[in-house]
Amino acid sequence: MFRKRHLISIRDFTREEMEAVLRRAEELERHARPDLMRGRILANLFFEPSTRTRLSFETAMKRLGGEVLNLDSEEASSMAKGETLSDTVRVIGGYADAIVLRHSREGAARMAAEVSGVPVINAGDGAGQHPTQTLLDLYTIRRESHLEGLRIAMVGDLKYGRTVHSLAYALALYGARIYPVAPEGLALPADLQEDLRHSGARLQPVKSLQEALRKADVLYVTRIQKERFPDPQEYRRVAGSYRITLDLLRRAPKGLVILHPLPRVDEIDPRVDGTPYARYFRQAYYGVPVRMAVLSLLLPRRGKGEA
Amino acid sequence: MFRKRHLISIRDFTREEMEAVLRRAEELERHARPDLMRGRILANLFFEPSTRTRLSFETAMKRLGGEVLNLDSEEASSMAKGETLSDTVRVIGGYADAIVLRHSREGAARMAAEVSGVPVINAGDGAGQHPTQTLLDLYTIRRESHLEGLRIAMVGDLKYGRTVHSLAYALALYGARIYPVAPEGLALPADLQEDLRHSGARLQPVKSLQEALRKADVLYVTRIQKERFPDPQEYRRVAGSYRITLDLLRRAPKGLVILHPLPRVDEIDPRVDGTPYARYFRQAYYGVPVRMAVLSLLLPRRGKGEA
Amino acid sequence: MFRKRHLISIRDFTREEMEAVLRRAEELERHARPDLMRGRILANLFFEPSTRTRLSFETAMKRLGGEVLNLDSEEASSMAKGETLSDTVRVIGGYADAIVLRHSREGAARMAAEVSGVPVINAGDGAGQHPTQTLLDLYTIRRESHLEGLRIAMVGDLKYGRTVHSLAYALALYGARIYPVAPEGLALPADLQEDLRHSGARLQPVKSLQEALRKADVLYVTRIQKERFPDPQEYRRVAGSYRITLDLLRRAPKGLVILHPLPRVDEIDPRVDGTPYARYFRQAYYGVPVRMAVLSLLLPRRGKGEA
Repeated sequence: MFRKRHLISIRDFTREEMEAVLRRAEELERHARPDLMRGRILANLFFEPSTRTRLSFETAMKRLGGEVLNLDSEEASSMAKGETLSDTVRVIGGYADAIVLRHSREGAARMAAEVSGVPVINAGDGAGQHPTQTLLDLYTIRRESHLEGLRIAMVGDLKYGRTVHSLAYALALYGARIYPVAPEGLALPADLQEDLRHSGARLQPVKSLQEALRKADVLYVTRIQKERFPDPQEYRRVAGSYRITLDLLRRAPKGLVILHPLPRVDEIDPRVDGTPYARYFRQAYYGVPVRMAVLSLLLPRRGKGEA
Repeated sequence: MFRKRHLISIRDFTREEMEAVLRRAEELERHARPDLMRGRILANLFFEPSTRTRLSFETAMKRLGGEVLNLDSEEASSMAKGETLSDTVRVIGGYADAIVLRHSREGAARMAAEVSGVPVINAGDGAGQHPTQTLLDLYTIRRESHLEGLRIAMVGDLKYGRTVHSLAYALALYGARIYPVAPEGLALPADLQEDLRHSGARLQPVKSLQEALRKADVLYVTRIQKERFPDPQEYRRVAGSYRITLDLLRRAPKGLVILHPLPRVDEIDPRVDGTPYARYFRQAYYGVPVRMAVLSLLLPRRGKGEA
Repeated sequence: MFRKRHLISIRDFTREEMEAVLRRAEELERHARPDLMRGRILANLFFEPSTRTRLSFETAMKRLGGEVLNLDSEEASSMAKGETLSDTVRVIGGYADAIVLRHSREGAARMAAEVSGVPVINAGDGAGQHPTQTLLDLYTIRRESHLEGLRIAMVGDLKYGRTVHSLAYALALYGARIYPVAPEGLALPADLQEDLRHSGARLQPVKSLQEALRKADVLYVTRIQKERFPDPQEYRRVAGSYRITLDLLRRAPKGLVILHPLPRVDEIDPRVDGTPYARYFRQAYYGVPVRMAVLSLLLPRRGKGEA
C-alpha cells in the first residue's frame, strides 16, 4: 500500500495513502510497540530551529524503541558552511536509517531525497511543505471530530499560512466544506481557491467569524503576524476582532472542536483552554502517534513484510 | 509512603519522606535496575544552563533504561518567546512522562506543576529551591559519614547560598549541630537562624574555621562570590582566609568528610583532592542514584503497585 | 591483546594493536551486536565543535545498544570557565563509562586520561592527535583496497595536515610506499620525512599529480586552506592545479580508490562522486564500525573475559 521511500509533500499523497498513515497512527496510539524501531537510528537534521517538531519526532522514535541523533541549527549550519547540503545528507545517511530535514530553502527536502541513501522526511522547507503537520491535523480532526462530511472554519492569515494551505489541499480530497475567515489583505489567494475547488473542496464564503463558528464542526485558528501590517494600531484592531474568547463561544455548537498548530500568542484567550472545545494541546500530542506511523511506514522491518 | 506527584521544594518533605528517597537511592546504587524506566521519557526543560544537573538527571534516567529529551536554554527560551511557560509545559507534557524544569524565576516550578499533566521536578528556580541537590547532599552525608547526631560546619557565603539554606533546613529535621563559618556580611540571616532553630537545628557559633574543623564530622564548603565584594582586594583577603588547604587540614579529625556542591574554584586547594577527606567528586556521583530514586518514586510502574 | 585503558595517540599503537582494532571493526560491521554496550554510557565532551566526529561516536555507541551524553562546545566551555578541565573530567567520569574528548589544546587528552576514572578517547586535541580518524582511514584502505604493499599518493597540504601525518605514521608500520604531492611551501616537513623513513615508510618523490595517480592504489586528498596563502589569486591557481577532476581521472588505473577525510570543498569535483573511484562517503561511514571496535575494546563486558 504505502510504497513511498521519502515523505516530501502532502500533495504526493492519494487519499488512500493518507488513510493508511492515519490508520497506522491509530493502531500505534492504542497499542504501544516499544520494539518496532529497536536498533534503528533517526537523524534530526535541523538547519533552522523548530523545537516542537524536533521533539515530536524524537519522542515518536523513542516511543518505538529507536534512537535519535540531533543536529541543531548551529551544528547543521556549520556543516553547511564547510560543504554542500548534498554532502551533509550523504554523510548523515551513512550514520542514520532515516533523516528528518528542516531547511529554510524551498525544495531542499526534495533535493536531499535525490542524493540520500536513506528515507528523507520533510519537516518544513521554507514556504514549502511540512507534510507531517498536515497529517497530524487530519488525525486530530478524525479523532476529535470526523473527516467525512467535515465543515471546517479556517481563521487567521490564510494568505501566507503554509499550514492551512496544506491542510486545505488534504481536506479537499475528503470533499470538506471550508469556511475561510480572514482579515482584508490576508484572504485565501484566488489561484489557490480555484485549485482547491478543482481538487474537491467546497469553499463557502461566510460573513463573519460568528457565522463560521455556528456552521462549523472544527475551528482551525492560526496566527496573524504583526509583520504583515505596516500600522501597529491596525494590527491590534484586526487581531483583536479575530480572537477566540469565551464570549464568542457562548453560541458555539455543542460538539465544536478548536484547533491551533501552536504556538498560540493572542489568537485564543487562555480561558478557552478549560472549555471542552479546546483540543489544541491534544493536537500537539497527536503529533507523536502520527510521526510514529510515518516512521513505521518508511522504515518497515527488514525481511518481515510488514507495512 | 511517597505519594507526591511533583518535586518542588525540600520544605514539602517530612523526614520520613526524605528517608524513603535515601533508602531507594541506596537500593538503586547497590542493585542496577536497567529496565525500571524502560519505555519512559524524561524531558530536561532548562531555561538556564546547568550542565551538571542536566547530565546527572540524564544519566539517572538512562541508567534505569529510560529515554531523555533535552531542551537547552536557547531552545527553551525561544519557545518561551513564542508562548507562555504554561503552554510550553503542556506541550512538553504531551511528549514526556516527566519534566525536569530549570528556570530563572522563583516560583516557576510550582506554577508549572499546576498546569502540567505529568510530574514536574524542580531543578532550581532562581533564588528558590533545588531539592534534588539537597537530597544528594543528605545522601552523601549518610553514605560517607552519618545523619544521626551529625555535627556539620558550613563554610563560605551563608547569606545568599541557596544550597546551604536548603541543606540546613533538611538537617534541622535530624537535629543536626550546625557550625556556621562565614565572612563578615555573609553570615546566615537572623530570620533564617530562628527558623532553623524552630525546626530542630542546633546552631552553634564558632570562633574560627579551625575550631569548626576540629568539632565537625562534615565540612560543607561553598563558594564566596567575588561579586559580593565592592573591593577586589578585600575579596582576595577574605576568600584566602576561608580556603581549605593541606596546612589547615593537618589538625583535622580522622574521619572528617569535606563536601562541596561544585564547581569549585579556589575554595579548596587541588592538593586536598588526594586526601581521604575529599569526597566532593563522590558527592557529584551520588547525584545519579538520588535522581534515580526520585524518578522511580515519581514514576512508579503502572499497575504493579511498586513504590 | 588490546590492554590499553585510554586511546590518546596513534603513536602508542603497535601494528598488532592496530590489527586488533581493524579485525574487531570488521566483525562488528558484518555482525550487528545491538546489546554489546547495553547499560553503558558514553560522554561526548566536545570543547570545540566537530559534528561528524561527535555523530560518528554517538552512532557507534547507539548501534551497540549503549547510551550517549552530549556536551556541546558551549556547555563544555561554560563548565571550563567555572572549573579546571581536571575537575570537569572527574565529574563527567562519575556519570559516564567512557569519555570522548575534543579540545583545542594539544596534550589535553593525555592530561585528562591522568585524572579520569574511566577511559578517555582523544577525538582531536589541537595540532595533536585524532587517532580514531587514522584507524578509520586504515580500515577504509583495508576494506576498499589493501594495506600490504600499499602505494598511496597523499595530495594537498602535507605541511600542516594532522590527518595525513598520523596516517603516514600508521602506514609506515606497514612499509607503505608514499607519494607526497603538495604545493610549494606545503610539502611534508623534512624532520617528519626522516621520522617516517625510520619507521619503515618508503617515501617516493613524484613529479606531478598525474604521475602519482598512475602509480598509486589509493589517492588520499586533503584540503588546501586559503589561509596559508597571503595572495588569494595564488591560492586559486594552486588549489585549481591540485583539484581531482573527471578529466584528470581519464588515465587512472582501474582499481584506484580516492579518499578524503571530509568536508570536501573544491578539492574533488562533485562529478567524480559517481565514478567507482570515489570512496570518501564510504570512508565516513566506516567511522562507525571503527569506533564501535574502539568502544568494545576499551569497555569489555565485566566478568566475561571478552576482548
